[in-house]
Amino acid sequence: VFGGAIEKGWAESRTDRDGVTFAAALDAIGYRGKERCGEHPLSAFFELHIEQGPILEAEGKDIGVVTGVQAMRWYEVTLTGQDAHTGATPMGLRKNALLGAARMVDAIDAVGRKHPPGVATVGRIENRPNSPNVVPGEVFFMVDLRHPDGHALNSMESDVRAALPTICEPLGLTFSEQRIWEQPAVRFNEDCVAAVRRAAELTGYSARDIVSGAGHDAAYVSRVAPAAMIFVPCLGGISHNEAEFSSKEQCAKGAQVLLQAVLEYDRQLAERGGTTKARG
Amino acid sequence: VFGGAIEKGWAESRTDRDGVTFAAALDAIGYRGKERCGEHPLSAFFELHIEQGPILEAEGKDIGVVTGVQAMRWYEVTLTGQDAHTGATPMGLRKNALLGAARMVDAIDAVGRKHPPGVATVGRIENRPNSPNVVPGEVFFMVDLRHPDGHALNSMESDVRAALPTICEPLGLTFSEQRIWEQPAVRFNEDCVAAVRRAAELTGYSARDIVSGAGHDAAYVSRVAPAAMIFVPCLGGISHNEAEFSSKEQCAKGAQVLLQAVLEYDRQLAERGGTTKARG
Repeated sequence: VFGGAIEKGWAESRTDRDGVTFAAALDAIGYRGKERCGEHPLSAFFELHIEQGPILEAEGKDIGVVTGVQAMRWYEVTLTGQDAHTGATPMGLRKNALLGAARMVDAIDAVGRKHPPGVATVGRIENRPNSPNVVPGEVFFMVDLRHPDGHALNSMESDVRAALPTICEPLGLTFSEQRIWEQPAVRFNEDCVAAVRRAAELTGYSARDIVSGAGHDAAYVSRVAPAAMIFVPCLGGISHNEAEFSSKEQCAKGAQVLLQAVLEYDRQLAERGGTTKARG
Repeated sequence: VFGGAIEKGWAESRTDRDGVTFAAALDAIGYRGKERCGEHPLSAFFELHIEQGPILEAEGKDIGVVTGVQAMRWYEVTLTGQDAHTGATPMGLRKNALLGAARMVDAIDAVGRKHPPGVATVGRIENRPNSPNVVPGEVFFMVDLRHPDGHALNSMESDVRAALPTICEPLGLTFSEQRIWEQPAVRFNEDCVAAVRRAAELTGYSARDIVSGAGHDAAYVSRVAPAAMIFVPCLGGISHNEAEFSSKEQCAKGAQVLLQAVLEYDRQLAERGGTTKARG
């Protein structure tokens, strides 16, 4: 709501599993406030977060200088062949939808590798009828494509769409495909990113630029104020899981860089003799 | 029970979904009889069936001379990698169990094509956690291998088992695999098969030798009496489905061959001056 991505009334009317609205929950804890949402002036917004991925840990870096959030698109795909008895149907007379889906899973993985630092994944797949002695006649799967650059994401999409007929036709399969969701790329404010990078240099911690694979508050705030993020490593890249772990030392380094970045950006603001505010 | 594959007492004690035993159901319809099961003497056993596969239809043949039932083996396989965020995990740092399973599905299909007339299929697959934005950390699937020759089936099994480490290791996956069921090949009695082949010649219908992919009564009866089968084509190879269809003309040709085969075999028996009985 603050960033203008969704309407205040819609957000307030959302309910939890007990039917309590978001508005009522804010009232109950005294967090509704009096200021109109979105009118709070921000000079800039810096967000510290665990990476939720394995890159910093794998490279032994203390700090990720987050330059933006990659663009994301989701697709639903259904391949259709013909259910058949596994024992009575020779290999040459099959229309095996799972074989087509398997080749698509491999092709989609290759699309990700072809367009670094893009990523391409089939995370969900439903095989039908999913019986051990039936050649599968239909498979549904979802494709998740992401890339920091929207043009490169277009190329990834084209590659996936080109693979469908190439793989399906020789197997006697038909297919349907639909893009069901997309989110454009976010590039964080250059001055804010430079402040984070400078802060990492000042602290002496090892650092690298990184693009966030997941969405964050800063991605929305960046619509109305200069924003950037700082990542710290997490164990095995694991997140949203009880195994999620970053050490106190790793978190402290992130906090130190956050402080330095804010001070650095504030110094620049003072030099320019002004402030930046959210929504005028 | 008649063929000695299972015990009479075990069969009688099986219950349907309402708890009615097989023995009680036989009593209720007056089919229990007084003769001891397995003692009924059979000179030979001929069984007419739809093919349940697409071969006869594809080749435009009227009659399948069934020479046996292929050997079958089932396996359970689990590939284990690491759940990971699709957006935050670079391609090079993934342990994608579904990618490994996809390559196994393709490799298993290739094993079937390498060993004709064998067939190899993954009919069931469970992807975990099966969420669109999680790189799959574990996949379970079942493998169905069949071949008329047990030695060739051994080779198919070896090929599948060799593919597992070849595919899994480069992807950072571990695997477990277990054969959970097997049924040896059945070769029908040569004289009975010859009688069916001769009957097809006499009627003038087009015919070809064929191995049954599915199990049948004749496969069990063959343990205690000479047996063979006759197949007729069915639409699209579809079976155990409301779309199952063979025309009256196709069925009539099968019945004609069945009659001729019994007469032919009976003529041979008379020439040899003897009869063959089940279980002496």
